[in-house]
Amino acid sequence: MSLADSLKYDKDGLVTAVVQDAEGGDVLMVASMNRQAVEESVRTGKAHYWSRSRGKLWFKGETSGHFQNIREIRIDCDADALLLLVDQELAACHEGYRSCFFRRASPDGRLEAIAPRIFDPGEVYGGKK
Amino acid sequence: MSLADSLKYDKDGLVTAVVQDAEGGDVLMVASMNRQAVEESVRTGKAHYWSRSRGKLWFKGETSGHFQNIREIRIDCDADALLLLVDQELAACHEGYRSCFFRRASPDGRLEAIAPRIFDPGEVYGGKK
Repeated sequence: MSLADSLKYDKDGLVTAVVQDAEGGDVLMVASMNRQAVEESVRTGKAHYWSRSRGKLWFKGETSGHFQNIREIRIDCDADALLLLVDQELAACHEGYRSCFFRRASPDGRLEAIAPRIFDPGEVYGGKK
Repeated sequence: MSLADSLKYDKDGLVTAVVQDAEGGDVLMVASMNRQAVEESVRTGKAHYWSRSRGKLWFKGETSGHFQNIREIRIDCDADALLLLVDQELAACHEGYRSCFFRRASPDGRLEAIAPRIFDPGEVYGGKK
């Protein structure tokens, strides 16, 4: 039985994937995977997701070059979520930050960036490709 | 504007919450929050979720005593996911493990426990309450 067979997909055919930096331990992002994304991630060793907004398979890093090389995959107690330990090339966030969780929420609701922007999204995703 | 106001809830009124051990850095679990769960978490400093299976607000630790004391909340770039850095009392997983992600998936699909069970679920959730 493959990993993709072991999972309990939701009504939309998806499981949740939490992505953690294998080196520093920072949580980099959270995304969804369908069966195909799980299979491609296992087969290639590079993270693939299901893009809800675009409604298609999403090979992370295909445009930016910021691939996520999977070092280990863990599965949760309910078998409806995966934890990917990855070697992240440069940055996970399309806004130019290492982690998508780059803002801290203060008790009063104020949001504050707590990490530096390490690339210019305009250069990576814009016309300069 | 409160944190609950800053979030982009999905069609079911939910955001994703990733929970990380503030000390060791382990990812403990992933769950969903509705607006009320966010508000109660901020108000009390203890993690609350929306239980999809039970269809009601879920005060984590209410039965087991294994509360999650929130040290910091981060928000992701799309404002549809939160990262909770918590001080976890004893264990997060209802199966008795510190983290819900206690199994590693081998490339051949085999699942292997990589952490010790630290409490007996029968004693905590059983008739001995």
